[in-house]
Amino acid sequence: MRHSAEKVPHVTIVGAGPAGCLLALLLSALGCQVDLYDSRSDLRKSQGSKDRQRSINLALSTRGLTALKRAGVAEKIVQHAVPMHGRCIHPVGGRLQFHPYGQKHQHLLSVSRRTLCKILLDECEKRQLIQIHFGHMCTNVDLEDRRVCFLRTEVIDGEEADLYVTSDLIVGADGSFSRVRAAMARMDRFEYSQSYVPAAYKELTMVNAATSEQSVFPPEFLHIWPRHRFMLIALPNDEKSFTCTLFMDKSEMDKLSTPAAIKQFFKTNFPDAVDLLPSLVTDFINNPAPSLITVRCNPFNYIGNAVLVGDAAHAIVPFYGQGCNAAFEDCRLLAEAIEGHDWHDMSAVLSDYARARKPNVDTIADLAIEHYEDMSTKSARPLAVLRRRLEIVANRLFPRTFLPLYSMVSFSNIPYRQAVLRAKWQDRKIEQCVMFTGLLFLTASGVAICRAALSRPSQ
Amino acid sequence: MRHSAEKVPHVTIVGAGPAGCLLALLLSALGCQVDLYDSRSDLRKSQGSKDRQRSINLALSTRGLTALKRAGVAEKIVQHAVPMHGRCIHPVGGRLQFHPYGQKHQHLLSVSRRTLCKILLDECEKRQLIQIHFGHMCTNVDLEDRRVCFLRTEVIDGEEADLYVTSDLIVGADGSFSRVRAAMARMDRFEYSQSYVPAAYKELTMVNAATSEQSVFPPEFLHIWPRHRFMLIALPNDEKSFTCTLFMDKSEMDKLSTPAAIKQFFKTNFPDAVDLLPSLVTDFINNPAPSLITVRCNPFNYIGNAVLVGDAAHAIVPFYGQGCNAAFEDCRLLAEAIEGHDWHDMSAVLSDYARARKPNVDTIADLAIEHYEDMSTKSARPLAVLRRRLEIVANRLFPRTFLPLYSMVSFSNIPYRQAVLRAKWQDRKIEQCVMFTGLLFLTASGVAICRAALSRPSQ
Repeated sequence: MRHSAEKVPHVTIVGAGPAGCLLALLLSALGCQVDLYDSRSDLRKSQGSKDRQRSINLALSTRGLTALKRAGVAEKIVQHAVPMHGRCIHPVGGRLQFHPYGQKHQHLLSVSRRTLCKILLDECEKRQLIQIHFGHMCTNVDLEDRRVCFLRTEVIDGEEADLYVTSDLIVGADGSFSRVRAAMARMDRFEYSQSYVPAAYKELTMVNAATSEQSVFPPEFLHIWPRHRFMLIALPNDEKSFTCTLFMDKSEMDKLSTPAAIKQFFKTNFPDAVDLLPSLVTDFINNPAPSLITVRCNPFNYIGNAVLVGDAAHAIVPFYGQGCNAAFEDCRLLAEAIEGHDWHDMSAVLSDYARARKPNVDTIADLAIEHYEDMSTKSARPLAVLRRRLEIVANRLFPRTFLPLYSMVSFSNIPYRQAVLRAKWQDRKIEQCVMFTGLLFLTASGVAICRAALSRPSQ
Repeated sequence: MRHSAEKVPHVTIVGAGPAGCLLALLLSALGCQVDLYDSRSDLRKSQGSKDRQRSINLALSTRGLTALKRAGVAEKIVQHAVPMHGRCIHPVGGRLQFHPYGQKHQHLLSVSRRTLCKILLDECEKRQLIQIHFGHMCTNVDLEDRRVCFLRTEVIDGEEADLYVTSDLIVGADGSFSRVRAAMARMDRFEYSQSYVPAAYKELTMVNAATSEQSVFPPEFLHIWPRHRFMLIALPNDEKSFTCTLFMDKSEMDKLSTPAAIKQFFKTNFPDAVDLLPSLVTDFINNPAPSLITVRCNPFNYIGNAVLVGDAAHAIVPFYGQGCNAAFEDCRLLAEAIEGHDWHDMSAVLSDYARARKPNVDTIADLAIEHYEDMSTKSARPLAVLRRRLEIVANRLFPRTFLPLYSMVSFSNIPYRQAVLRAKWQDRKIEQCVMFTGLLFLTASGVAICRAALSRPSQ
């Protein structure tokens, strides 16, 4: 980005989660002075209460890694991640089934949100242009004057509790209940919606020790216990443990209110997992059952003064494993949009970025909701599994022509909307092929029958 | 409502607009002590800046009047209102057309928002159980503790600027950008959306003096200049003036940027109105062009602690003239729900009220958006006008069986959702009648032709 030698553009990022930190790295690399604020204290200095950790391990895929590579931090994160080459399906009582995600080299990376944050914060601290401020709760945003008010939750003697910061650009990376977005929602013609799926989730700790009944679960897979109206999943932390999550309608979950009911439910539905959940009953009773929100808004920017990234712009449900990947892609695309442009053009730059990004994040929001059925129901259905395997074979045969939707979403940087349109086009082509082959077969059969009839000697 | 003799239930209403004032009257009649807060100053004591007055005159109909009657204030308001018996359509260059709204006794009442507020505030002040507090801006709502924080904008010496109020029930009657709703939106599973139609509106002042070209416009009608992509409407203030509003896509409106362009646009499209708009150019340039928001949320209550009414719960576009009527109906239904119930049951009472009300306000929100086309386009189409007239005739012939949708919405208290379902049922019955008549005619013709053919003497 071009700017006068005397004035370094100053960016205020609200929220030092994964997206806020990554954007800070990317913008500092463009020469911006970045101040990164978070209401919480530094998670590296405290064990942190349970509720500070997001329960679902993140599944990093190509989009996320592409953005992390641009910031020069991909390698460090890969070192702390566990590759997952496919799904491992656990039927009730049946044998484990392994479904690869794509080609042999294609895999997701399971990494805990906490580890990811730690590495990104460490990197931010190394950069001279980045300042991190913990314990600063955003209380008000003046979008016209580009001024943010923070309440300092840990005030040192003699300091004012309120801090007012004016900068060239405000970034809202402050999650599903974003304060920056709340300020934008009061501006004219800002479209906004928040909605929930019926399912809530419950985090459980799973050890991976051999029991008398079975050997350990292979850690290089995403484990799924698909049970139609609910499902259990487990993402590997390492060889020894998984982060395990039950997804289930909140109303159904509330019915499991006694230790006996909880134990019985797990014994009946997840017989091979129950022995590996040592603190099942206490986890189930003590852990919260958070809801799964979908946030949609438009536009993502307020002229050249403010912009939203990640959950603040488009919180999605976790079933496609794309929440963090989409957030990181926001950061990469936003940094690429800003790069090479004059700071005075920021209104046009942000508007173009927001307009181009909107249909893609709407698409992944829809896909993520639809994917719950894919995991909880279809992953157990032989026909759906066969279809997915055929897709992977077709992709191996025609690697440039045929790309399964899952591969385009997880193992490419093709914009989400374009991926869905291409998948639809592919489906039409396959239908046409099938129909053409069928017609050819019928014609050939007809011709053969006629020839046989004609060549039959007259009686 | 039943409560112990010692403790009078205390209700905090945020927002002293029409809905807040009416609910205060209704709840005080049930024995509640009501504190009514508004961020603005008393509109009766100041002329008020232009932007404080909502531009569109209100069209009171049966639902609004039913609620006002319950509070004992309908008569006073009717005295200050102008009855509108139907639409007066102004085609370009053609003759005026008059379309009645319904039966002869059925009419809407045009009343300014300011007049309505004044009367309601005067009534509130007369009630011992109601206290009104102007200049109190709601800054925070603690839904768990039922505590509202207000910033006093006109602080008297020695007074704290912040006021904290704890009560038995918080009511959000604070409009489209409700602070009470914002607090509810942070609670689990609160569904919310805000969206805008493309049209914005511009208020213009219209005098009603005879010009050389024409006599005065009849004041007992809602005047419409339907021009498909935009429209002008005028609601009577009295015999001498109208409140006139142009509805038009914001992007199109922005193109009218010079006095010459504005004048030319009005001369071309509204030739019979242009001479009656003495301050057209200054009005057009100086008046804002507010957008038209639709707000949907669910649920309208937070357990027994808080509830939303009016625009705070369901802001709708003004094209069906039902915004204020739906808000007043909220107040009546809420007061009826509370009446006779123990204050300790409030969670169940409010939940039942909210659940029953939700489908109805969703229905009127949809109808209001669809009605823009009815006013701007269909009102000028002969077939649509004929259909409406036939509906009124059918209603006169079968007053208990056939009720046009417009009459059910405007001249009855039938719940909105039920009105739409009944209208669909009626449409199906009419279609069946038409088909049956057609079949009968065809059969009779067939029989007649056959008989004629058979009786013809053979040649």
